[in-house]
Amino acid sequence: MVRINEHYLTLTAGYLFPEIARRVAAFTRSHPQAQVIRLGIGDVVRALPRPIVAAMKAAAEEMAHDDTFRGYPPEQGYDFLREAIVAGDFAPRGVRLAPDEVFVSDGAKCDSGNIQEIFGLDNVVALTDPVYPVYCDSNVMAGRTGPSDATGRYEGLVYLPCTAENGFVPPLPERHVDLIYLCSPNNPTGVALRREDLQRWVEYAHRERAVILFDAAYEAYITDPAIPHSIYEIDGARAVAIEFRSFSKTAGFTGLRCAYTVVPHEVTGCSSRGEVVELHRLWLRRHATKFNGVAYPVQRAAAAVYSPAGAAAIRQIIAFYLENARLLREGLGAQGFAVYGGIHAPYLWLRTPSGEGSWSFFDRLLAEAHVVGTPGAGFGAAGEGYLRLSAFNRREQIEAALERIGRLSR
Amino acid sequence: MVRINEHYLTLTAGYLFPEIARRVAAFTRSHPQAQVIRLGIGDVVRALPRPIVAAMKAAAEEMAHDDTFRGYPPEQGYDFLREAIVAGDFAPRGVRLAPDEVFVSDGAKCDSGNIQEIFGLDNVVALTDPVYPVYCDSNVMAGRTGPSDATGRYEGLVYLPCTAENGFVPPLPERHVDLIYLCSPNNPTGVALRREDLQRWVEYAHRERAVILFDAAYEAYITDPAIPHSIYEIDGARAVAIEFRSFSKTAGFTGLRCAYTVVPHEVTGCSSRGEVVELHRLWLRRHATKFNGVAYPVQRAAAAVYSPAGAAAIRQIIAFYLENARLLREGLGAQGFAVYGGIHAPYLWLRTPSGEGSWSFFDRLLAEAHVVGTPGAGFGAAGEGYLRLSAFNRREQIEAALERIGRLSR
Repeated sequence: MVRINEHYLTLTAGYLFPEIARRVAAFTRSHPQAQVIRLGIGDVVRALPRPIVAAMKAAAEEMAHDDTFRGYPPEQGYDFLREAIVAGDFAPRGVRLAPDEVFVSDGAKCDSGNIQEIFGLDNVVALTDPVYPVYCDSNVMAGRTGPSDATGRYEGLVYLPCTAENGFVPPLPERHVDLIYLCSPNNPTGVALRREDLQRWVEYAHRERAVILFDAAYEAYITDPAIPHSIYEIDGARAVAIEFRSFSKTAGFTGLRCAYTVVPHEVTGCSSRGEVVELHRLWLRRHATKFNGVAYPVQRAAAAVYSPAGAAAIRQIIAFYLENARLLREGLGAQGFAVYGGIHAPYLWLRTPSGEGSWSFFDRLLAEAHVVGTPGAGFGAAGEGYLRLSAFNRREQIEAALERIGRLSR
Repeated sequence: MVRINEHYLTLTAGYLFPEIARRVAAFTRSHPQAQVIRLGIGDVVRALPRPIVAAMKAAAEEMAHDDTFRGYPPEQGYDFLREAIVAGDFAPRGVRLAPDEVFVSDGAKCDSGNIQEIFGLDNVVALTDPVYPVYCDSNVMAGRTGPSDATGRYEGLVYLPCTAENGFVPPLPERHVDLIYLCSPNNPTGVALRREDLQRWVEYAHRERAVILFDAAYEAYITDPAIPHSIYEIDGARAVAIEFRSFSKTAGFTGLRCAYTVVPHEVTGCSSRGEVVELHRLWLRRHATKFNGVAYPVQRAAAAVYSPAGAAAIRQIIAFYLENARLLREGLGAQGFAVYGGIHAPYLWLRTPSGEGSWSFFDRLLAEAHVVGTPGAGFGAAGEGYLRLSAFNRREQIEAALERIGRLSR
């Protein structure tokens, strides 16, 4: 009989967000009158700005005429988009990239889940704890781990606990690791790494000949000009880091699906015989074989993000979500909660009251306040006792959520 | 130092179509005056019908308003699309599917490349020869093969030669295999499997407890009502087959990216301990972890394919391409070529003259006739001595290509 990939059986639970969706659906079925406020999954709610929609419609219209119709997109993305990315996201910060180092894709989730395929199974992988589940689960599914223990930690992975005690800054591993997933501004803690933190990691990667997989999907939310938006702002990072970016949270593209990954030519790995290989070559091969590009109208929409009108509209929306985050942060603080994040990120990381378990607090918040968060334990063992709240919602929902949480039994 | 996935080094060459693109680019650089006719990569050229573009624009407009904006798509696709697929593509042919057995994605290439991830590495994989390169390459990259031999065949794979001698119908393997990739109507040969051929394969899969990975991306080109469009038209197939479908060639979506995969709940695999697991569960987990859905406006465009106006427009375009195929088939036949396919498919499979090598004939066709084909050898050892021509082009290009091929030195 055909054999399954049994590593899937090693996974401890369903993917986190479908699990939350199931619990919320069960609650709303039994409480059809409840006005549930969703601060769980980090999904944007504001409309796409007009210049972006106009670009998408114009491109759709091009597809309606034989002489302007476009078929298969170029495998790495259209030049117009890759050039706009390099000029708009990197050049202003002093980072020099070639457009051919940019791979346009349908999502940073997909890219950060797929990237491990180009690495051998014998690499030691380090993850922060708590962590975005995709980094962990994709490595479990590939077979880089043993079974999990009672706290949900998998054998073979190196966990870097990020807690209030260390300011949610991941400590360097105590043993050699080959691959390190870093996310800044962080999902879920909402904390951004400072320049000196990143410098320490780039030095570590050079010393250990490791590769950093750097997820910067939330860089647009950074409010302190001293904090780097790209890991390539750190000297030497081009030789040791791959960076993931997304239009999802930057420009409200969760429903349009566009992102990109940067793989500089300098970053390399080796074979067991010591042959040094550009990771760019491997990622290009994967991209060309197992992916087929992003819809032309979506790429035109993404390019419009860099137009003056598009960029201005986007900045306004991000400022709106950041104001939501400030309201949540200050409001919950005034209610006596210990709250982290929410300054350079659309996420708040909340300590549960009186050491209550994450899932227990999640269920109680849903049942009593009709507010959906994300249980910290769903992001890893060190997330136990925390809850993530997203600032992606309408203002009146944020205010209502605050008011309802204030009335929770404590 | 970080270790690469060395299985990538086992791949014999770059992905076929980028290689062709490179040769064509080199030729046009040195011959800027040449009017090159592209019958190589199977990419559509006709505009998207108005009802489809209108649906896409209307959905884009919804995204411009807070009250109709949509964020993350449902992981398996919107209900409106999955229900339209079940009602439009399967119910009329007597096939009963549940919408939750349909997984909407961004391409059949992606799905047919990714599907092998849910299977163990110890399965024996059978491929037709010639074959769509993704099936083979994705298994090489995953590590299911040894090195390749002089003909490009990889150790560990079971090849099923499809040649003029067996009418391009894949023979049953002489040894046990666990996974079988079948494509009908076939890319590249253009030949469609009849009901009795498929029945034989479904019986084989039941007998050997194997799984068939059935690629029906070209089903819309079938002209004989006796030929099945779906493998699920065969009794018992629900328990042994996964089917890939695409809007790319059916509805001109190569530039929009939308497809779907059907995984019936009955199809299973087992773990080494004998635990029987629904493949649906595994594919759902992969989909939810390493993919994030298709753009809402693209899903609306795909749903419009099933509207009466959309369906009528699509049928006209397919009839146009099929008429191209007929012209090529009859024209080349009259010129003395041995030609196959092109009746239930947009592809012609041409014997090269006087046993000339595929790549040699490809280069000569480009240099002398300024016509781009696809070398049969690029699809496998049994494709040597053949060339694939695509019927996806404007009528005058098809006619000009025929005329130029007729003047080739023989």
